[in-house]
Amino acid sequence: MNIDIATLFPEMLENYLSESVVGRARAKNIFTVTCHNIRDYTQDKHRRVDDTPYSERQGMLMQCEPIYNCYKSVTEGKSKPHVIYMSPQGKTLNQKRAKELSRLDSIFILCGHYEGVDSRVIDEIVDEEISVGDYVLTGGELPALVLVDCVVRMLEGTLSQADCYEDESHYNGLLEYPQYTRPEVWHDREVPKVLLSGNHAEIAKWRREEAVKATYLKRPELLERSPLTEKDLAIIHKLEEKENKK
Amino acid sequence: MNIDIATLFPEMLENYLSESVVGRARAKNIFTVTCHNIRDYTQDKHRRVDDTPYSERQGMLMQCEPIYNCYKSVTEGKSKPHVIYMSPQGKTLNQKRAKELSRLDSIFILCGHYEGVDSRVIDEIVDEEISVGDYVLTGGELPALVLVDCVVRMLEGTLSQADCYEDESHYNGLLEYPQYTRPEVWHDREVPKVLLSGNHAEIAKWRREEAVKATYLKRPELLERSPLTEKDLAIIHKLEEKENKK
Repeated sequence: MNIDIATLFPEMLENYLSESVVGRARAKNIFTVTCHNIRDYTQDKHRRVDDTPYSERQGMLMQCEPIYNCYKSVTEGKSKPHVIYMSPQGKTLNQKRAKELSRLDSIFILCGHYEGVDSRVIDEIVDEEISVGDYVLTGGELPALVLVDCVVRMLEGTLSQADCYEDESHYNGLLEYPQYTRPEVWHDREVPKVLLSGNHAEIAKWRREEAVKATYLKRPELLERSPLTEKDLAIIHKLEEKENKK
Repeated sequence: MNIDIATLFPEMLENYLSESVVGRARAKNIFTVTCHNIRDYTQDKHRRVDDTPYSERQGMLMQCEPIYNCYKSVTEGKSKPHVIYMSPQGKTLNQKRAKELSRLDSIFILCGHYEGVDSRVIDEIVDEEISVGDYVLTGGELPALVLVDCVVRMLEGTLSQADCYEDESHYNGLLEYPQYTRPEVWHDREVPKVLLSGNHAEIAKWRREEAVKATYLKRPELLERSPLTEKDLAIIHKLEEKENKK
């Protein structure tokens, strides 16, 4: 997979993209990523890339031309990438969409800044607007990193076991069960006995119960989309009864 | 406001925290932020901070003690901060919660990594688990930056006009109307005439219509939580009629 990112702050991204799991996947050539400074594509004498918006609104807006020139220059002679604009206007990212995106050959990510971007360049080049959540951020840079991290993790070879991620929250629809490591007792808190028992069937049962319980207590809305067994429903029923007694 | 971040990758955070709006707010002392390397607080000879989880699960888990020591050392002699663990198990961050957090004096953010963190230290020190969205990321570092960016933007003095952010998406519950800057015509695409009219009432009307339209088309679920006027409902009704005709 090839990722191009158009931004006014490439140095803000480069550091993260060279570190940790993402940096290692990049070093192993599992994917390539290049950050492009939109400012390098302006024809303005003063290297300006923004201007005041039409009518009285405050703030500054990124102009069409530098973004368009950047896009044209980066994609010239290549097959058309999937163009994503990181924007609070977009559909909210989730694990399913990230999985779909991980199957693409080429992604071009546009990061907005200031008050936003002239709408016309979005209409002209953007295939999809993606939001990482219902909150306001300074620019598209952090959302772009979130997207890259999330997608790159699912590329074959990034994680040491190909199916590592399948176990994690939001993949099976339930939250994770609690986990414990050494020491066995810490601050008078003991590791649950069942985890020391070696009885795999009992451990699996306990984990499923804890996952259902955690989801019910912390993110009940996720239960609606999860495939639940009869046993899961019995656990939920018990929790509901407990709550009603209060 | 004072923010402390406990992480295994402080250098991944530092770069971002020195840039852009967040970096400027930090330089102006609107808030302070310090990244602490959890590895500095282990008593293990080999500076290990993780171990295999109990029972057969793959991966590594961060241990209680280094995290606890870091927390104790950082908060010693100070009033108790609000302790947040960035986790897919948490309640999903939104603009309202970020606003509430921006009123606190002191926040301590714990970033997990590897497969997660021993549950007992979460039970012992964490007040709140926050997720930035329903997707799996490598660690809590990006989510911590998202949280800091979102919260710091709302501190007085960060943005040049105190009420700047109130105009933006997810604050009024509607998505933003499209915006335009120079030139008036770009690639045969014209700036909407009304924005050049100088008629403020008409412009305000057009913007509200476009905001309602954008929200209806891109994120209809947001309309349920937005305070809508009679006129807004009429716009939606028209859009629904148009769709039914198709």
